Amino acid sequence: EVTLSGSSVFGLGYWEAIEEGNDTFSVMETYLTATATVQSDAGLEFGFEQTFGTYSTEDARAGDGISNDGTSVYVSGAFGKLSFGSVEEANDFADLPDIGGLNGLGVDDVAELYSDTGDNGDLFPGLGYNRSSDINYTGTFGAFTIGLSTNLNGPGDDTDDSSSIGLNYNFGDGYVGLGYVNTENFGEAMSLYAGGTFSGVTVNAMYTEFDPELDIDKQSAYGIYAAYTTGALTLSAEVADADAFEDTSYGFGASYDLGGGAAVVGGIGSVAGTTRAEAGVSFEF
Amino acid sequence: EVTLSGSSVFGLGYWEAIEEGNDTFSVMETYLTATATVQSDAGLEFGFEQTFGTYSTEDARAGDGISNDGTSVYVSGAFGKLSFGSVEEANDFADLPDIGGLNGLGVDDVAELYSDTGDNGDLFPGLGYNRSSDINYTGTFGAFTIGLSTNLNGPGDDTDDSSSIGLNYNFGDGYVGLGYVNTENFGEAMSLYAGGTFSGVTVNAMYTEFDPELDIDKQSAYGIYAAYTTGALTLSAEVADADAFEDTSYGFGASYDLGGGAAVVGGIGSVAGTTRAEAGVSFEF
Amino acid sequence: EVTLSGSSVFGLGYWEAIEEGNDTFSVMETYLTATATVQSDAGLEFGFEQTFGTYSTEDARAGDGISNDGTSVYVSGAFGKLSFGSVEEANDFADLPDIGGLNGLGVDDVAELYSDTGDNGDLFPGLGYNRSSDINYTGTFGAFTIGLSTNLNGPGDDTDDSSSIGLNYNFGDGYVGLGYVNTENFGEAMSLYAGGTFSGVTVNAMYTEFDPELDIDKQSAYGIYAAYTTGALTLSAEVADADAFEDTSYGFGASYDLGGGAAVVGGIGSVAGTTRAEAGVSFEF
Repeated sequence: EVTLSGSSVFGLGYWEAIEEGNDTFSVMETYLTATATVQSDAGLEFGFEQTFGTYSTEDARAGDGISNDGTSVYVSGAFGKLSFGSVEEANDFADLPDIGGLNGLGVDDVAELYSDTGDNGDLFPGLGYNRSSDINYTGTFGAFTIGLSTNLNGPGDDTDDSSSIGLNYNFGDGYVGLGYVNTENFGEAMSLYAGGTFSGVTVNAMYTEFDPELDIDKQSAYGIYAAYTTGALTLSAEVADADAFEDTSYGFGASYDLGGGAAVVGGIGSVAGTTRAEAGVSFEF
Repeated sequence: EVTLSGSSVFGLGYWEAIEEGNDTFSVMETYLTATATVQSDAGLEFGFEQTFGTYSTEDARAGDGISNDGTSVYVSGAFGKLSFGSVEEANDFADLPDIGGLNGLGVDDVAELYSDTGDNGDLFPGLGYNRSSDINYTGTFGAFTIGLSTNLNGPGDDTDDSSSIGLNYNFGDGYVGLGYVNTENFGEAMSLYAGGTFSGVTVNAMYTEFDPELDIDKQSAYGIYAAYTTGALTLSAEVADADAFEDTSYGFGASYDLGGGAAVVGGIGSVAGTTRAEAGVSFEF
Repeated sequence: EVTLSGSSVFGLGYWEAIEEGNDTFSVMETYLTATATVQSDAGLEFGFEQTFGTYSTEDARAGDGISNDGTSVYVSGAFGKLSFGSVEEANDFADLPDIGGLNGLGVDDVAELYSDTGDNGDLFPGLGYNRSSDINYTGTFGAFTIGLSTNLNGPGDDTDDSSSIGLNYNFGDGYVGLGYVNTENFGEAMSLYAGGTFSGVTVNAMYTEFDPELDIDKQSAYGIYAAYTTGALTLSAEVADADAFEDTSYGFGASYDLGGGAAVVGGIGSVAGTTRAEAGVSFEF
């Protein structure tokens, strides 16, 4: 049996740094996901997940095919979970949430600049590259979770080789973790993660040291995210910086739960020295 | 919950004016639509709609991604309905039906030449352009419905700015309406619409005056569509003309309901001076 | 009503002949299929089928639209079945199974080199071409099944004209068949098919003679596939050759049923003179 579900955001965005086009523009993302699982006689679970995505109103209007927002399959059992396709990078298992709730302002991208470069290479043109795992193993042993991911692409593939490991320790409502990734033509990044929910406040923090293959200095990045929920209202704040940027990035966000899976969301901040803001609604189905 | 539904047509088409390829050719269109709605506690409705389309047998065979035939999201309530993405242009809310039932012969495109140019710019190479709204507001107040749409695309977008308004008044089984659109680099178009169902005959008519930005004369277009249903059979006729064409366009169509959502359909006509015809079946699921 | 179903394979592949990239690489294919049927009052059935596919881990990660693995529609009744779109070529109705169970090693492609060239033109660069039917009629009359397919593409189509016929005779658990295809700029291919299941062994065989339009000699190809199932285990073997290749191709495969639609699968062989192997899992949902 195949199950469909999805989510969407829409509203208005503002970006000070747009050179061409409107500073204030429509924002829209939609995700439609098909999932299916089967169980073997011995209790192994096999799963499939595929997401159709649009990332803007331009995408959403008639035109090319709807984007593949990621397709993955897995087998899981007592040994853990082995995934193929659009899988998690093992080292960035505790990436930070973003601020804004629509496209996101990208404050988290600053903190993840050296460790999650598959997503935000465009923020870092001097070291821009192309990394993405296609196989991930994740296993949980007591309070410890270990993840391993790598790239085993075949003929015609031009993705740089990359291998990563993640180690997470959970205690009560908190966690600490360690991530390491080594990418061909790019370098090594080691990340420390910590966070948890204490007295109604959720905190997520990360720090990364990056040792580039290019002949430049070692670099570091950090980010801290905090959120507080009271009734239907959630307030959030985030600060992040990386050696690649002159200015510290930060943002403030708010979300008001409307019930039924819908919320009013928004945020404002300064990312890599330019002001960004967005406001609108989100809903899940 | 996500609901899937769809429709398809297939059969044969004929076009006198094809320079390369078969005059008589296979015709096929398929549409698969996913829809979902959620209700907030206060009674707002949030909705999602995405259609996967193929437009010909070439499209339908293995190859590129299935086309995005439009993705939209909305929030609606007592204030009306606000849509983002692949939304209706407010000014052409009462566009004419086409003749044929498969691809359609395109008689309606002649009448809509100046007002619905997002769809049929290719009919009008001298003034071809690129218009499409990404935000639409529609509100109903008693017998009046008002629509507003515009384009708020963001970075990297090359769509011409365009804003439009539509006003509709319903009485019994009839309606009259007014549409206005102003498009950058193209001009202003004002349309009058009227129609209704009287004694089993459905009539739809429209007239448009177009004031181009280019240094050419004002232009006008009109179209009248009529259909009569008796038992399972529906007969239709349409005539349309625009100053851009030498010949008046017209067509005759028939549809025979087979039950279960299926029908035999077909039509023949002369569009912009060339003979076109098509016959086949349609079904909905 | 629209029904979703699908299948997936994943594991590792090996190909001796890869010039760039890993010899041993990740293998993954996913298929998600939407189907719908409606019945007219007179008992005609109208159907729709559309498959979204990814063919590798590269395909499965975020990027372009998910591939159209084929979209077709049909009407069927006492007269037989008429299909449009991504339809079966009438002449290759009894193509051989492949060895391996993941991507497949391609042993069958050697046997089908001259008759199923829509799929494997890349194996045959000297005669590579572009053939694909868009209309298929199939009718069953007693023990005989006849199929006809051709290409009626319209404006802008650059597919070579091609028409084919298939004739199949079933007796008990066996069949014999004949296929003929004539393709513009390519030539004529005549295939003989035979097979069946006898004492738990399934055998499929085919032989094709090809009369090229190019000024080269007539060519022939053949293939034999056999499989034996005992309990959860199925063993298979295949041998094939075509005049275009120096070496005979062959392969051995195994599949172990895990229940619930899942299986462990694998194979090893020599295809067109190079060693290929693959092993992994498959599941249906």
